[in-house]
Amino acid sequence: MPQDARPNPIDFATEPSRYRHWRLECAGSVATLTLDVDPAGGLFPGTELKLNSYDLGVDIELADAVTRLRFEHPEVGAVVLRSAKPNVFCAGANIGALARASHAHKVNFCKFTNETRLAIEDASEHSGQRYLAALGGTAAGGGYELALACDWIMLIDDRRSVVSLPELALLGVLPGTGGLTRLTDKRRVRRDRADLFCASEEGARGRRALDWRLVDETVMPSAWDEKVAERALLLAGSSDRPDDARGVVLPALERHVADDRILYRHVEVALDRARRRAAIIVRGPAGAPEDLAGIHDEGAAFWPLAMARELDDAILHLRFNEPELGIIVFRSEGDPAAVLAVDALLEAHAGDWLVREIRLLLRRVFKRIDVTSRSLFALIEPGSCFAGSLAELAFAADRALMFSGARVGDNREPATLALSELNFGAYRMGNGLTRLATRFLGEPDSLERARERVGAALDAGEAEALGLVTASYDDVDWDDEIRLALEERASFSADALTGLEANLRFAGPETMETRIFGRLSAWQNWIFQRPNATGAEGALKRYGTGLRPSFDPERV
Amino acid sequence: MPQDARPNPIDFATEPSRYRHWRLECAGSVATLTLDVDPAGGLFPGTELKLNSYDLGVDIELADAVTRLRFEHPEVGAVVLRSAKPNVFCAGANIGALARASHAHKVNFCKFTNETRLAIEDASEHSGQRYLAALGGTAAGGGYELALACDWIMLIDDRRSVVSLPELALLGVLPGTGGLTRLTDKRRVRRDRADLFCASEEGARGRRALDWRLVDETVMPSAWDEKVAERALLLAGSSDRPDDARGVVLPALERHVADDRILYRHVEVALDRARRRAAIIVRGPAGAPEDLAGIHDEGAAFWPLAMARELDDAILHLRFNEPELGIIVFRSEGDPAAVLAVDALLEAHAGDWLVREIRLLLRRVFKRIDVTSRSLFALIEPGSCFAGSLAELAFAADRALMFSGARVGDNREPATLALSELNFGAYRMGNGLTRLATRFLGEPDSLERARERVGAALDAGEAEALGLVTASYDDVDWDDEIRLALEERASFSADALTGLEANLRFAGPETMETRIFGRLSAWQNWIFQRPNATGAEGALKRYGTGLRPSFDPERV
Repeated sequence: MPQDARPNPIDFATEPSRYRHWRLECAGSVATLTLDVDPAGGLFPGTELKLNSYDLGVDIELADAVTRLRFEHPEVGAVVLRSAKPNVFCAGANIGALARASHAHKVNFCKFTNETRLAIEDASEHSGQRYLAALGGTAAGGGYELALACDWIMLIDDRRSVVSLPELALLGVLPGTGGLTRLTDKRRVRRDRADLFCASEEGARGRRALDWRLVDETVMPSAWDEKVAERALLLAGSSDRPDDARGVVLPALERHVADDRILYRHVEVALDRARRRAAIIVRGPAGAPEDLAGIHDEGAAFWPLAMARELDDAILHLRFNEPELGIIVFRSEGDPAAVLAVDALLEAHAGDWLVREIRLLLRRVFKRIDVTSRSLFALIEPGSCFAGSLAELAFAADRALMFSGARVGDNREPATLALSELNFGAYRMGNGLTRLATRFLGEPDSLERARERVGAALDAGEAEALGLVTASYDDVDWDDEIRLALEERASFSADALTGLEANLRFAGPETMETRIFGRLSAWQNWIFQRPNATGAEGALKRYGTGLRPSFDPERV
Repeated sequence: MPQDARPNPIDFATEPSRYRHWRLECAGSVATLTLDVDPAGGLFPGTELKLNSYDLGVDIELADAVTRLRFEHPEVGAVVLRSAKPNVFCAGANIGALARASHAHKVNFCKFTNETRLAIEDASEHSGQRYLAALGGTAAGGGYELALACDWIMLIDDRRSVVSLPELALLGVLPGTGGLTRLTDKRRVRRDRADLFCASEEGARGRRALDWRLVDETVMPSAWDEKVAERALLLAGSSDRPDDARGVVLPALERHVADDRILYRHVEVALDRARRRAAIIVRGPAGAPEDLAGIHDEGAAFWPLAMARELDDAILHLRFNEPELGIIVFRSEGDPAAVLAVDALLEAHAGDWLVREIRLLLRRVFKRIDVTSRSLFALIEPGSCFAGSLAELAFAADRALMFSGARVGDNREPATLALSELNFGAYRMGNGLTRLATRFLGEPDSLERARERVGAALDAGEAEALGLVTASYDDVDWDDEIRLALEERASFSADALTGLEANLRFAGPETMETRIFGRLSAWQNWIFQRPNATGAEGALKRYGTGLRPSFDPERV
C-alpha cells in the first residue's frame, strides 16, 4: 500500500547536537533549556516559525531534552526554560502549521505536546528535577501552557511582557495543551477570573498576574538574571538527586526500517496494512546483571531501558505515520524468568537514581500506550514472556487473549503469564491507580488474590480464573478466534472505537492528567472539527489573512 | 427574527393524563412506570417509534413522572420500570429520529436524557425513592442505559431476552446516555469485559450477564411477576419516606408565551435575538409562610418550588428552542430579606420530606444550569435579590457583575448580595462540591471568610473583596462595561465558548456525573460530527437502509 509509505515519516529520534530550536546547557545542579526557534526549521515546508512559535519538530526536541536530562544529568536538580528571543518567551503553537494540518495530525500533535508537559511535571514530582519557567518576555497560548507545566513561573515586569491564552478570542479553539485544566486544577484560579483571562487577547501581567495566581513571581528587568539564578538554585536545592553520580548517555536507537517492518534491538514492529493492523513484538532480556553496579555498567544497554526507549519510539511512529492501522497487537518472545529477574532488580534497587528513572520511563511509556487511540490486543502464546513489567502490556490492552495448552507440532511449553511486585505500584496509570487496581475496581478481592500469586507461572486456566486475561482458547480455536476478533475490530467505525476506548480504559478516579486527555482533549477534538474553527471561514483558517472569521452562532 | 420563532417549539410541560408513552400507577409504597411507546406518537412527523424506542417526547414524559413521583407520592418508596410490549423492554433511542436530527438536537437530546437518568439516581440516593428495572424482555442501547440508572436490574431468564449496548457495532457511535460510564464506574465491570460487551451486537443474558455484573438478578418467567413484586417491596422497605403524608400535586405551569418574552409567575424570559441573548429575570418571594405547616399549606405555590419549576422550564426552552441565543443573563428583582427568610425555613426544616424535595429540586435545576452550553452572566443591580438560594445563580454564572453604589435618578438602595447556609451545602454541583467550594478551591480561607458573613447584606465593595463577584462598576461605567462584555462574548466562536465553559465550570474532583457530561459526552459529540457516523455513508445515516456503512479507517 504505497500511499501509506510516506516518503518522510516523522522521526522522534534526535539528540542535542542535532537540535535546531533548543539549546541545552548544564552548569552544576542547574540546566538551562533555551528556546530559540529557527523560523525556517519547520517540520513541514512553507511554515515560518516566527516569535518562538512551535510545531511538532520543536516539541520533539523538547521531549528528547526532558528525557535526557533525567538520565544523562543526575546532578541536575533544576531546569530553567528561557527564550533567546527578545521580548518573547514563546508565542505558542504555530497557527499556520496547525491550520494546515489534518484533523488527525492536530489531535496527535496536541496529545504529544501534552505528554511532554506531563513528563516535565513527572520529572518534578518523582525525579527531583524541578522546572522553572523564566518568562523574560510574553508567553502566549502554548507558550504560557508550557510555563504552566513548570513548578515556578517568573514573569519579567517590564510593563509589556504578559502571559495570555488568546486561543478563544483569536482562533476559535481552546488552549489545547492542558492550559484550562492547569488553570483550574493546578493553579486553582477562580473560575470567573479564568473565564476573563481566557476570553481576552491581552492577557495579564504584573500585580494582576500575581493576584490571580497566573504566575508565581514578577521581577524587574534589572534584577532578572540574578533572581532567575537564585530561584533555580533554590529549586535545585530541594532535589534528592545525587551530585556525584555518573549519568547514562542515551545513544541513538538502533533501528532498521523497511516497508512493512521496523526492527529495533528488542522490539519489532510488523505492519499489516491490508488488514489494518500492526504487531509489536517485544523480546525479553537475555539475562540480567548481577547487581546494581551491573545495571550502571550496562547503562543504556540495560534491557528495560533500551526496550522502553524502543517501544516508545514504535508507538509514536505508529501514531503519526500509520494512522490507518487501527489495531496494535502486542506479542512477546523470551524467557519469563529473565523478565522477572530484571523486575527483581528494579524492585530491589528502587531507591537508586538510575533505577528510579528506568521505572519512571517504563511508566510513561505504558501511559503513552493507554492514551494511544488504537485498539490494543495482547496475544499471550507459547514462547511469550508476558511477565511482570511486560505483563503491563496485557493489562493496558483492551483485550488480552491467551493460548491454552500446547500448539500441535510446537514443542514449546504452554504459554504462561506472571506477575511481579512492579505490577502493584510501579506503573500507575494517569488516574493514579495501577492497571490491575483499575481492572479490579469492582472486586478488590481479585486484586489481593492476584498479588498472592506474584512470581508464579500462571497457565491459561489460572490466569483466566484470576481475571487477568479476557479469554483463553486452545489450539483448536485459537487461530479462528483471533482472526475473527481482529477482523471484527477492523470493521468498526474508527471514531466510535476511539471514543469507546477513551472511556473504558479510564475507570475510577480522574486526575489532572486524565482530565487533560479526557474532558479537555475531547472538547478540543470536537472544536477542531467545527466549521467555526476549521471551516473555510473559520477562525483558525482565517487567522493571519486579515479577514474576520464568520461564525455560525448556534450553540450545541 | 421570525426564523427563530418556531411554529412548534418543544414543550417540556406535561402531566400523567397527557402521557402517550408511559403509564404511572401507584399502589401503596410501590409505583409502576410502564413503558408502552405509541409508535405513531413521535415528536417529529414521520418517525415511527417501534419496539419501545424513544425520542425526546418519550423522555419528557419520563422526566415529568420522575419529578411528580417525588412530590405527589411521598408514600412511594420504590418505582418499578417495566414494559407493556412483549419480549422487549426498550430498544433505546429511536435511530431514525436521531439520524435525522441536527447535531445540536442530538447533543441536547443526550444531555436531557442524561439529566433524567441522573434524576432517577438522585431520587434513589437522596430521596428514598428506589428504582427497579424489571427487564421482562430485551433492553438494548438506551433501554439498557435506562436500566443502568436504576438501583437493581432484574432480567427475565427466557433464553432470548438480553441486555446489550450495540451502538458501536450497529451505529458507529457510543452509548450516549451514560452507559459506558455506568459500566465502568457504577457497576465496575472489568474493562475487557466491558469492551467485549460494547463491541457485540448480541449482548448478554443469563449467567454471563450476572457474572459480569451487567444485571443484578435473573428470574425464570414462571416466577417473574412474583419476584418483581417481592424485590419492589424490599426496595420500598428501605425507604425513609413517610407513609402518612399528603403529597403535593404539581399543577400546570402558568406560562404566557409571546414572540420575545415568556412570562411565568416568578420568572420572566426576555429574548433579544438581535443581540443573541436572553435575560432570565427571577422575582423573589412576596413573603414566607410562618412555619412548616404553612409550607405544606402553600404546597406547589410555595415560592422556591414554583420558582424552581419555572426556571427549569425556561432553561430547557432556551436550550432546545432558541439555539442561537448564546448568552443567558440572570437578573433578579425583589427583597433579599424575603429570600433569606425562605432559605431559613428550608434550612430549619431540612428533615421534612417536602422541604427535602424542594431543596433537591433546586439543586437539580442549578445543576441543569451548570451544564447548559450558554455563556452565563449574572447582573447584580439595585432592586435585585441575589440572596441565599438565588445567589447560586451568580455562583453558577461564568461572570457575576455587580453595580456599585446607586444609580443616578434611581432612589433604590445600592445592590447587595447575601449568603445563607444553603450556599454551603444544599446545592452541591455534579462534582460533589458546592459552587462556593469549587470557586475557592485554591483559597479555602476565602470560603471560611464568606461563611462568616452569612446573612449580611454585602455591598459591591465587600462582595468583590470576598471574591464572590467577578467585578463591580459604578454608575459611570456600568452600562458600557456590561454592553461591551456581552457584545464581546457574542462575537466569539460559539463552539469554543462551549468547550471553554465545559472546562472552567468543573474544577476539582470528577464524579460519575461529571464524567458523563465531560469525558463521555464530549467524545460522543465528537463522534456525532464524524463522517463515519453522520456522513452520507456513515453508520447512523445508513442504519436500516440495508446498505453497509462505508468507513474512513484513519484513527485520530
